[in-house]
Amino acid sequence: MDIPDWRNKIDELDEQIVQLLSKRAAAAVAIGELKAKSSAPIYEPQREQAVFEHVRRINSGPLSDAQVQDVYERLMDVMRALQRPQ
Amino acid sequence: MDIPDWRNKIDELDEQIVQLLSKRAAAAVAIGELKAKSSAPIYEPQREQAVFEHVRRINSGPLSDAQVQDVYERLMDVMRALQRPQ
Repeated sequence: MDIPDWRNKIDELDEQIVQLLSKRAAAAVAIGELKAKSSAPIYEPQREQAVFEHVRRINSGPLSDAQVQDVYERLMDVMRALQRPQ
Repeated sequence: MDIPDWRNKIDELDEQIVQLLSKRAAAAVAIGELKAKSSAPIYEPQREQAVFEHVRRINSGPLSDAQVQDVYERLMDVMRALQRPQ
């Protein structure tokens, strides 16, 4: 495979990744609504830590665990923003 | 569904997301090796721009296009690091 072939493959993977990010965001919105009803805090460091531990544990490379967590830190920032009342 | 149910759903989504990130990273490593053979530059701003445009175009919410790009900016940083010779 040459570089354009690999890039086509990456574009296909991105379509799947973005779709899963949308599903994950929809779940975060649903949690945000449940939190609002019960006046629970949006930022729950213990849950975020559990997410980081989970993704590090299931990572099989070639990204390092630190790199996967790095991506997820940004992802969690964005998800948290989504739970804040507009 | 209550909060723990949604979190189980998120954990399942994360397993799929991390698996796709691994596949994407493996493709980036393959591209990095091809670039090294042809002395092509690792940083290709035009390609990165095309990736951002692609993910913004396919995004259907509830994340904003800017939020999806935000996550992808971190992802591209990490992928670029992976292409650098160790």
